[in-house]
Amino acid sequence: MTSAMQTSSSTGLIALDWGTSSLRAYRFDKQGKVVDKRALPWGIMNLPPAEGDADDRTDAGFRRALQAACGDWLRAAPGTPLIAAGMVGSKQGWREAPYLDVPLAVSDIGKSLTAVDTGLGTPLHIVSGLLERSALPNVIRGEETQVAGILDQLQVEDILIGLPGTHSKWVHVAGRRITHFDTFMTGEMYAALSNHTILGRTMQRDGAPDDAAFLRGAGVAKTADGRAGMLSNIFSSRTLGLTGELSPRAQADYLSGLLIGHEIAALLALVDGRLQARIALIGDDMLCRRYLQVLALYGVTQAEIAEAATEHGLWKLAQHAGLIA
Amino acid sequence: MTSAMQTSSSTGLIALDWGTSSLRAYRFDKQGKVVDKRALPWGIMNLPPAEGDADDRTDAGFRRALQAACGDWLRAAPGTPLIAAGMVGSKQGWREAPYLDVPLAVSDIGKSLTAVDTGLGTPLHIVSGLLERSALPNVIRGEETQVAGILDQLQVEDILIGLPGTHSKWVHVAGRRITHFDTFMTGEMYAALSNHTILGRTMQRDGAPDDAAFLRGAGVAKTADGRAGMLSNIFSSRTLGLTGELSPRAQADYLSGLLIGHEIAALLALVDGRLQARIALIGDDMLCRRYLQVLALYGVTQAEIAEAATEHGLWKLAQHAGLIA
Repeated sequence: MTSAMQTSSSTGLIALDWGTSSLRAYRFDKQGKVVDKRALPWGIMNLPPAEGDADDRTDAGFRRALQAACGDWLRAAPGTPLIAAGMVGSKQGWREAPYLDVPLAVSDIGKSLTAVDTGLGTPLHIVSGLLERSALPNVIRGEETQVAGILDQLQVEDILIGLPGTHSKWVHVAGRRITHFDTFMTGEMYAALSNHTILGRTMQRDGAPDDAAFLRGAGVAKTADGRAGMLSNIFSSRTLGLTGELSPRAQADYLSGLLIGHEIAALLALVDGRLQARIALIGDDMLCRRYLQVLALYGVTQAEIAEAATEHGLWKLAQHAGLIA
Repeated sequence: MTSAMQTSSSTGLIALDWGTSSLRAYRFDKQGKVVDKRALPWGIMNLPPAEGDADDRTDAGFRRALQAACGDWLRAAPGTPLIAAGMVGSKQGWREAPYLDVPLAVSDIGKSLTAVDTGLGTPLHIVSGLLERSALPNVIRGEETQVAGILDQLQVEDILIGLPGTHSKWVHVAGRRITHFDTFMTGEMYAALSNHTILGRTMQRDGAPDDAAFLRGAGVAKTADGRAGMLSNIFSSRTLGLTGELSPRAQADYLSGLLIGHEIAALLALVDGRLQARIALIGDDMLCRRYLQVLALYGVTQAEIAEAATEHGLWKLAQHAGLIA
């Protein structure tokens, strides 16, 4: 039992990053250091099935996933506070954690957690997503936790945080308040275009990255041709192939660059070309490096890649919530 | 034999509109009137199979399709000239009819047909597509024939012709020369987004058209939010659903309007907001009427819907080619 005793004495928080297709669990000591972590495939759309059950999205399914993620940690340290962020708080999740309205202070996010009974002797506190009400509303869920983590890690008050991915999010923070954010469906658009339109037919997607093709695509949005917009510009991925100017391999990176270029051009258009805040990028390292290249191409050079901030954010939110000292 | 004799005496041209998924055949009398027509499913990607053969894209497959479309017409009027436009002249077609460079006079299109031996005693003359070489090249194949038809029907020298559809084409004609054209992948984009992204998941696509939702979407590109661009604006189809402002049924028409609005906004941006030419739209009637609505929303009111012009164009090109008097 020595091992369990050690675990018990050193566990301050168990935190979950619980998304659509994956579940990550972190065990923190009482000083906020991650002492153990796990990655499991039990995203909210892929919960562990009961004996003979194909798809179980009931309480029991979520409980089995939680048990798999941290049942042993909890048995060794009963009563440890539990916190989770991500799609687990969506309508399709375990319990809906209603959106909080933007603007709001980052420190207020932790004060509105939604508790769900786990049957494990301690409730799970779910972090809310954020909603910006406007003519075209915007939502994030999960990224708010990364933002909380980054602010604390970098010790900044004002920053623009870019989170590239399936849906790229750009979160404006001023005076430690989240004031505004935008969504660009760049990653999902790339997948839809290359898997389900004529553009994919002449494209070859394996092989080494083609940086020159990527940058060629990324520059399109700032040329005169860029005024035709993305709906028109994307067709050039095919026609440059027809005219022999872009190989099948190059077309994939060209299209990726073209979409990211349009994202950055639009981001700049939204602030009349002035993007003066410090910028931090969080996400897949190769993707972040490509975003840095495109930002530089558009004259934005004050950007840096930040460390993944989810676990740090979960710790901070648990502090704001009073779950830990 | 009376019927065959009558057919023979009255056939001046057999013309084919031969696309990817369908084949339309027209029999003209010697005065250029369509006296018979047929629609068959034998597009170039769907040729009639030989006995026991799954997919036949050889000469024999194309010949069987041609035989089915007009074999009896040709037997009744041997030696009748044959012309075809559309994807039959693409790399994936029967014989590649190389692109002609834009700008060019419409009357020159018919002077560069590509003949293929049909085995039916008369060659098939295939119309070339058009290529506009530039930093982002553009191609059309099939639409050039509609343009030739429209110019003759409307008796105009200067016009902007819009051909909405899977790929919307906008063809600028000045002095009966095709000077420039643009492509917008609007229809295919709509299909990819609604079938293969998160936007489709909350969308319901049956039921009556929702004009209000369509126009609401169409107006987005000209608001301040429109500066965020299409990659960002499309996400509002989902978020307006999340906030209860857009029903699942309305989301489909909203997204369609949003894309067409961005197409028209870009078309205007390309000419610095001045679109003064007469405008004719050709295509599916309901879609053309929606484009008219969006054009009006963007202040462009000199547009009209023109009759389908493919068969008329095929007749004109055959004249230019000297196939008929």
